[in-house]
Amino acid sequence: MKKSEWLNALETPFLLIDEFRFQRNIDRLYRRTEQLGSRIRPHLKTLRSIEAGRYLLKDRASPATVSTLAEAKAFAAAGYTDLLYAVGIAPHKLPRVAHLIRKGVNLHILLDSPEQARAVTDFALANDVTFSVFIEIDCDGHRGGIPPESEALLTLAKQIDGNGATLTGLLAHAGESYACRTDEAIRAAARAECDAINLAGRRVRTLGIACPVLSVGATPTAHFAEDLTGITEVRAGVFTTFDLVMKNVGVCSLDDIALSVVCSVIGHNREKGWVFIDAGWMALSRDRGTASQAKDYGYGLVCHLDGRPYDDLCVTTTNQEHGIIALPVDAGLSVDDFPVGTRLRILPNHACATAAMHQHYQVLKSETNAQETWQRITGW
Amino acid sequence: MKKSEWLNALETPFLLIDEFRFQRNIDRLYRRTEQLGSRIRPHLKTLRSIEAGRYLLKDRASPATVSTLAEAKAFAAAGYTDLLYAVGIAPHKLPRVAHLIRKGVNLHILLDSPEQARAVTDFALANDVTFSVFIEIDCDGHRGGIPPESEALLTLAKQIDGNGATLTGLLAHAGESYACRTDEAIRAAARAECDAINLAGRRVRTLGIACPVLSVGATPTAHFAEDLTGITEVRAGVFTTFDLVMKNVGVCSLDDIALSVVCSVIGHNREKGWVFIDAGWMALSRDRGTASQAKDYGYGLVCHLDGRPYDDLCVTTTNQEHGIIALPVDAGLSVDDFPVGTRLRILPNHACATAAMHQHYQVLKSETNAQETWQRITGW
Repeated sequence: MKKSEWLNALETPFLLIDEFRFQRNIDRLYRRTEQLGSRIRPHLKTLRSIEAGRYLLKDRASPATVSTLAEAKAFAAAGYTDLLYAVGIAPHKLPRVAHLIRKGVNLHILLDSPEQARAVTDFALANDVTFSVFIEIDCDGHRGGIPPESEALLTLAKQIDGNGATLTGLLAHAGESYACRTDEAIRAAARAECDAINLAGRRVRTLGIACPVLSVGATPTAHFAEDLTGITEVRAGVFTTFDLVMKNVGVCSLDDIALSVVCSVIGHNREKGWVFIDAGWMALSRDRGTASQAKDYGYGLVCHLDGRPYDDLCVTTTNQEHGIIALPVDAGLSVDDFPVGTRLRILPNHACATAAMHQHYQVLKSETNAQETWQRITGW
Repeated sequence: MKKSEWLNALETPFLLIDEFRFQRNIDRLYRRTEQLGSRIRPHLKTLRSIEAGRYLLKDRASPATVSTLAEAKAFAAAGYTDLLYAVGIAPHKLPRVAHLIRKGVNLHILLDSPEQARAVTDFALANDVTFSVFIEIDCDGHRGGIPPESEALLTLAKQIDGNGATLTGLLAHAGESYACRTDEAIRAAARAECDAINLAGRRVRTLGIACPVLSVGATPTAHFAEDLTGITEVRAGVFTTFDLVMKNVGVCSLDDIALSVVCSVIGHNREKGWVFIDAGWMALSRDRGTASQAKDYGYGLVCHLDGRPYDDLCVTTTNQEHGIIALPVDAGLSVDDFPVGTRLRILPNHACATAAMHQHYQVLKSETNAQETWQRITGW
């Protein structure tokens, strides 16, 4: 099917989302997770867009995860009512949370310390509001959370539940799975994540606390989990668009990557075999996530405008508004293959970071190839 | 003087600009450049803010540099009339340039190839507009531009001037100076930058082309230049706020850095001695510019809220909305020194990249300590 002309007409650089791949990626994980008897609480942090959320949230009561209160506020304004703010709560943010709760939003907060629990309880009692709380469980030493086997978990659960708050759930995030080198390692990380949260759940429930939600998730473990017994929900974010980091982890193929940056060639350095493009780190981000992986894609993999990747052709250097594609000496390419004005697509290392550099996205609709624009929610 | 309470009250994370340091940095470079008989054409790309521009542009006819047509459009709308778009022109951007020229803006474009010149000439003749053009001169092999001694320069100058365009100036950017390790190396880079542009200027003028503007600049060379004979103007951008990369290059001290991110402590990992903050790479950027320098600051240097830096305390890891400060074992600090809710300031590796993550900036006014908000111009 012929690509729409708008890809050649819009000002560059711009962020492009391929709806066909986007939908296919969503279908793949949702189907798999439902087959395993659980459901997805998608993390909306990659695109932070109401329009993108419509593909992920069946109805306004569907569960979702957000990374900022700005997203919570925007999704609440769009009518969504089950939102987990999955970053440890800072006490000064409680008034904003309470405000959304009073408007009828089921906005869950996350914590892992007695100090936070005390702040939540104190605020709740002083302000006549009840918070819905998740406790973060540490399953792999990646970041925060408390060990599932610890006494501290039970102490914290008792401190929270019934004291101006309801302990709604337990949450684990297998952040170390991004560093896995084999499928088997990811499967093991997924088992460890589920085991940790199930253990924590059993122990908390022995206290007589219902704690109905057991939440796990990271894009790699979500795709490789084989048994979700006991797991209420799976969180994942970057799976909607994927990126080169996820390709290297082995969760997707290049052909699954649904997000790219469209740019124009603006010059050359013939002696050095460099092609300059108008996508620097302002459009691509400074993320170098593939630098520590088996295959380093520089600042992104270069594709033709129709999406076909060039073999091993990467954006090698970025300045603020300049990208440099250094042509490999043995690639059989010359700068004359990229005349000034040529349009290219760049696949990103890390979709979350690249999307964060844009205020809106251009969407290539499947079947019609029409253009649609999605807005990004900005700020905190 | 007591800091204003608003620093403690605003939602975190937010970007803070210290007006006193900002103004002092501007005064320093402007005074030095004027003493050397030249003037500054500030590069507005770091903050991309009309409010910040007022500190840099004496009047609406003052020369300025921009990195996108979005900035050109916004500064033109604010009445500024002498704007250099210092990224190689892509032919499809000429209609937007022409639109601003027709509105009375002296918007200069940059190019370095016959293909670009042909596109400019063709568009100008077909659309009855005259473009003001700068040719980029390569002074150090850093990126683009043509060598000052080349025949190609003269051919290009003749191709442009009088053919739907005026050759207004020549521009060099000593991009390699960011990698200099000694003051003497920067002084040498500054001499090479000026020598290249003066040579190019002499050669072009022998053709009978006036080419009135000879423009050099990069923040390091701008500060270390000792002789600006023949140089019409000096471009520099990051000097207004500076950052840790510039501190490492030796252009400023820590105390000169006028931009920081204010964040809150949101948790701890006691076993590992980690402090979690609510400034991840969304607030700090993914820039790791100091990684290749003598002193690596991780994702930024940690300071007290009043701006005093902690010795050698850095943000060691970032996720999207989490930063991790790993306390050095020998620093005599414990996580209890950073209770949940503690506010900190983080000095950035690269001010341009950090500012790009924010849609507005909070300004600490000198003398009054009052709060002011500046908007960032977004997009392209």
